[in-house]
Amino acid sequence: MNNKGTLFVITGPSGAGKGTVLKEVIQSLEGLYFSVSATTRQPRVKEVDGVHYHFMTHERFEELIANDRFLEYAQYNGNYYGTPLDPVEEHLEQGHDVILEIELQGALQVKKRLPKAVLVFIAPPSFEELERRLRGRGTETEEVIQNRLAIARQECAHMDEFRFIVVNDEVDAAADRLRAIMLSCRCLRENLDFTLN
Amino acid sequence: MNNKGTLFVITGPSGAGKGTVLKEVIQSLEGLYFSVSATTRQPRVKEVDGVHYHFMTHERFEELIANDRFLEYAQYNGNYYGTPLDPVEEHLEQGHDVILEIELQGALQVKKRLPKAVLVFIAPPSFEELERRLRGRGTETEEVIQNRLAIARQECAHMDEFRFIVVNDEVDAAADRLRAIMLSCRCLRENLDFTLN
Repeated sequence: MNNKGTLFVITGPSGAGKGTVLKEVIQSLEGLYFSVSATTRQPRVKEVDGVHYHFMTHERFEELIANDRFLEYAQYNGNYYGTPLDPVEEHLEQGHDVILEIELQGALQVKKRLPKAVLVFIAPPSFEELERRLRGRGTETEEVIQNRLAIARQECAHMDEFRFIVVNDEVDAAADRLRAIMLSCRCLRENLDFTLN
Repeated sequence: MNNKGTLFVITGPSGAGKGTVLKEVIQSLEGLYFSVSATTRQPRVKEVDGVHYHFMTHERFEELIANDRFLEYAQYNGNYYGTPLDPVEEHLEQGHDVILEIELQGALQVKKRLPKAVLVFIAPPSFEELERRLRGRGTETEEVIQNRLAIARQECAHMDEFRFIVVNDEVDAAADRLRAIMLSCRCLRENLDFTLN
């Protein structure tokens, strides 16, 4: 069997719980490949090249842009961030599912470029709950929290452009739903290499 | 919330294990409504009207056909069998998912009539395994078995007309896949009545 892999693009506002939900899904579903982003920013302490990011120079990043080697990319605070195309394509061809956990603008870029990508929006149950979660961390200033909430509202306004919505009201239930989305895509006729003999 | 229900049409050859797989799925997913077929054949011992079938006269059945009250119907051995449309529509409108476990020809009729229906084919891993399962019951004559195998081959030739394929190699895994298909449809943007406030 050589099934076709699916590209899953997972997006959602800060505080929606993408990371926690994804962590649970990885533990209950095999054959998932996590895309590692490339960036031109400096590695932080404990960050490992090729694991947390592919760290590279501005020159190298722009060379890859010129050669169309990014599935999506953007600039934040003077640094580039992007998804290298080649490893994604290689894993898909090998029949693996690929997960991109990226920002909204990147997700919409991927959707344009690869319409078959499956876009999933992880949503908080309400803005009130989102605010509670952001405050609950207790590590941010009021300004940072208000800024995150404003960005979250902008991001959530694009929810309808996603194929699937996973409301993260409760982590286990949300992980169950995200896992179901991934598992079901493997059962799509067009993805399943199955002949009855 | 008033989510939209999905109509799932489950088909597969005799011996593929539809019943066993569905039984497991019902135990792990709430909000599923099983459509009860109508028939003009006589009830067997222990069959309860409205539970196993809606038993009705030829005249009544043909009146319902004339009034377009069947989602699909067919004749076998001089008796009618069909899926009453009204309860299906009512449950879908209430946001329930509806399951039809029906024969191939009925499934293809439903697909024509309701293109949004989600067709799932439960397939045996191989014809060899299917034969083994049919023989394993030990209750059928060779003629019956050969007849079932011939019908199974005809049915499986239509597998590509189904959106999803669930290969029943192992009941738990197959039930997990079918449940995933059902749960994922609830997360489709168009089915989920969710507004972030």
